[in-house]
Amino acid sequence: MPVFTAEQLKKVGTAIFEAAGTPPEEAKLTTELLVKSNLCGHDSHGVMAIPYYIQLILDGTCKPGSDIRIVKESSTTALVDGNWGLGQVVATKTMNLAIEKAKKHDIGAVATFHCNHIGRMADYVLMAPPHDMIGFCTVIHYAQVVPYGGAERIFNQSPIGIAIPAGEEPPFLLDISTSVCAGGKIMHALAMGKKMPEGYIVDKDGNPTTDPEDFVKGGAVLPLGGPVAYKGYGLAMAVDIIAGILTGRGPASFNMSDEQGVFQMAIKIDAFQPIEKFKAEMDKLIRTVKNSKKAPGFKEILIPGELELRKEKERLKTGIDVPEKTWAEILKTAEKVGVNVNEILKSEK
Amino acid sequence: MPVFTAEQLKKVGTAIFEAAGTPPEEAKLTTELLVKSNLCGHDSHGVMAIPYYIQLILDGTCKPGSDIRIVKESSTTALVDGNWGLGQVVATKTMNLAIEKAKKHDIGAVATFHCNHIGRMADYVLMAPPHDMIGFCTVIHYAQVVPYGGAERIFNQSPIGIAIPAGEEPPFLLDISTSVCAGGKIMHALAMGKKMPEGYIVDKDGNPTTDPEDFVKGGAVLPLGGPVAYKGYGLAMAVDIIAGILTGRGPASFNMSDEQGVFQMAIKIDAFQPIEKFKAEMDKLIRTVKNSKKAPGFKEILIPGELELRKEKERLKTGIDVPEKTWAEILKTAEKVGVNVNEILKSEK
Repeated sequence: MPVFTAEQLKKVGTAIFEAAGTPPEEAKLTTELLVKSNLCGHDSHGVMAIPYYIQLILDGTCKPGSDIRIVKESSTTALVDGNWGLGQVVATKTMNLAIEKAKKHDIGAVATFHCNHIGRMADYVLMAPPHDMIGFCTVIHYAQVVPYGGAERIFNQSPIGIAIPAGEEPPFLLDISTSVCAGGKIMHALAMGKKMPEGYIVDKDGNPTTDPEDFVKGGAVLPLGGPVAYKGYGLAMAVDIIAGILTGRGPASFNMSDEQGVFQMAIKIDAFQPIEKFKAEMDKLIRTVKNSKKAPGFKEILIPGELELRKEKERLKTGIDVPEKTWAEILKTAEKVGVNVNEILKSEK
Repeated sequence: MPVFTAEQLKKVGTAIFEAAGTPPEEAKLTTELLVKSNLCGHDSHGVMAIPYYIQLILDGTCKPGSDIRIVKESSTTALVDGNWGLGQVVATKTMNLAIEKAKKHDIGAVATFHCNHIGRMADYVLMAPPHDMIGFCTVIHYAQVVPYGGAERIFNQSPIGIAIPAGEEPPFLLDISTSVCAGGKIMHALAMGKKMPEGYIVDKDGNPTTDPEDFVKGGAVLPLGGPVAYKGYGLAMAVDIIAGILTGRGPASFNMSDEQGVFQMAIKIDAFQPIEKFKAEMDKLIRTVKNSKKAPGFKEILIPGELELRKEKERLKTGIDVPEKTWAEILKTAEKVGVNVNEILKSEK
């Protein structure tokens, strides 16, 4: 597997986006967030998305350089037309908008439609903690998940992202799907010729299966919760409504396109508690959890977000290994838009 | 098992609360919400709580008649000292406060401490839909749930409640714990001499167990998610922070008292979408889910909240069956505060 530094991948990615007609600032931001996903160990949201994003640009589905448009606005809320800009660019602007509103009125909430794939939600919710705010984000696109008791793809993985500042400890960061797993995990199993664990997917008739092929042939992902998966189903439906109906994007099953509906919120902590007191309690809670007794088979308890930080430190040192197939696709995409990747990598050395 | 009408239980409950020094309005509201829980099939949050609530009043931990005090306030937010009033009374007032703020500024969020047991969150989030708002509530008290990989009680069941209005269909209502189950389910298994299903609880060393006795002897409940229980753990910790630290109540494991921390929010829908369009899409989504293909073994797919409505209709007809033991405890409590339950039941007939 070829290994690259984050800087190398950023140079390559930025050049490709620019060559496809993306303004330099947007090319830089998008690539930085993609490489950040690789650094944090979430390769499914990393540079492997470049060929997909570039194709959307070449197809005209994604329109880099187009600005967002506020359709409806109040002191605390906004409905935003993303105008089909790059998802990372749109979602950064809309999260900033939520934060600006929260600065003045303690809470800001922004709902966005006509948005392309925004990547990793962590990037947006983590914009809130430096402002001493809680960041919240949820997003949907097309359906891949059954309701509890169902056999049809009705909901999206319907993820929920929450970031909360601590004091000396890193921020709490939750970024999870409300299904058992994301679609990427199934595709990965398929590519590796492996089975899925039990309790993850069903076939097209709703029967439990471990064969990723069954998913491709019209199967679906189960909602979170195992024997009480009605809970994950309920969360998925709430997200479908908030990121689908409230944003105007439409629920996952009504709009099977790549469009994403995004709902973001920022809440100012000192509207409720003095920030220093809050942060001191956050540190204390994080340390209490870390130091609490472990279950058999566990050497440590990880705080949500800790694994990503650890991986990032590691990959900044060791580099990012990109699967041959992914790299070949990036090279093909680069060629398509007239970028010489070898030249860039040479100049970087 | 004795069976009572909702009206009978309301009369009895109200009389007991009044006899314990509760102002009539508060006695009525509290009892109505308890009986409503029974009607909806959630007996664990129903009249069986009367002896517990009355004991708190007699101990002086619960102070009926004391008003809430707004400690800190902005146009969109409030931090509220519940002044140890009855939980149902406090949480109704604070949800109203959130709704009033949302009426003027599209979003309202209220964090409350010094609050007694509020009962079923559904009651508060369902206050939002008649105002064409989304209602959100989360609450914690003492710890009963392990972190993922942990063996110690650190988190509360950390429930999440969301209600969203539809048009012709009843509102969407999610009211779930972020653990596999509530403590009441384990106590019920214990009382019935039954085992718990696998994957619900661990013993005091974090080993999986199905014996409810192990829970009582220092065991704990697992977070939601089965093989991916780090997701339920993450949600539980987010709730611990929001309902624990942001409210000032303190996280579940720092404050093992019966105090509840409550965070409630109301969001006005037409700040984002025209309400009629939103409701029409809600109806369409609900019907799409209901009419979608079923998994083997399932005759229907229930919308979150549907089971409760169905149960309520049924119990309004058939009455509410109260276990002998629960009824005996209610009678004992009635006697303690000088209420003659038989007189009340006679007059009701």
